[in-house]
Amino acid sequence: MQPGTTEEHCSIAATLGVIGDRWSLLILRDVFRGNHRFSVIQSDLGIAKNLLADRLTQLIDDEILEKVLYCERPARYEYRLTAKGADLSALLIALMKWGDRWHSDGEPPTVLVHRECGTPLELHVACPHCDAPVRPGQIRSLNQATTEEMTTH
Amino acid sequence: MQPGTTEEHCSIAATLGVIGDRWSLLILRDVFRGNHRFSVIQSDLGIAKNLLADRLTQLIDDEILEKVLYCERPARYEYRLTAKGADLSALLIALMKWGDRWHSDGEPPTVLVHRECGTPLELHVACPHCDAPVRPGQIRSLNQATTEEMTTH
Repeated sequence: MQPGTTEEHCSIAATLGVIGDRWSLLILRDVFRGNHRFSVIQSDLGIAKNLLADRLTQLIDDEILEKVLYCERPARYEYRLTAKGADLSALLIALMKWGDRWHSDGEPPTVLVHRECGTPLELHVACPHCDAPVRPGQIRSLNQATTEEMTTH
Repeated sequence: MQPGTTEEHCSIAATLGVIGDRWSLLILRDVFRGNHRFSVIQSDLGIAKNLLADRLTQLIDDEILEKVLYCERPARYEYRLTAKGADLSALLIALMKWGDRWHSDGEPPTVLVHRECGTPLELHVACPHCDAPVRPGQIRSLNQATTEEMTTH
């Protein structure tokens, strides 16, 4: 399944081409939570070893994870986020927040808080000029060839 | 491929279970941009008709899209976002922003701006108490059973 020919210049399609696999995102969630080792991730996700090895190799090839030696004899490696990988935090938070709102019974299972003060965090689409959160209906999408509008109705 | 048994109470896994399919997200991107009709989406994505019909049915079953009659004779329908679907805007923006930063040559192909003032929008993880953006390393992830930490190193 490949996106169509109009997809070449779309950043959403580009991102999905790199991390648009459910397992890859669950692996990244684990690494964000501090599960850095193959056996821990494998056990946590209940994923087949060959599938996990395949996805980890792909994430390293795409420079989202890097393999770091943590034991010399025997040689043991763990998986760490690169700057490019760490930059996926807003995406993972967006996935979590939506699941909290629409697919959680009662209290959200996990809460993200600000390390410094313990306050639950929020994810905002913000306008730096107006200094205010922006609702979906207030978003306009522009590209070089045409003017498109994001509509929510 | 099913997530493992530890996934039951994770909102990220729950979200991926609903919209963790690449085509579903590309269809939603199209609807956000104002492509509401089957033929337009099909042509834009270059997706097989049966695959598109299948994904649209699933998105309606999951109450993310709704079918709206726009022509009575002959009966014609278009696809509109529900409130639950519109609430995916931050997720789509997170996908776009990451693609812009890491998988775009030069200028981002599409820019999202505030409808009122035309300023390019930003996506922030924010602490309402400290009134400041939060970096990935400043995020702590808590759950009821254990205390986990989101780590970026």
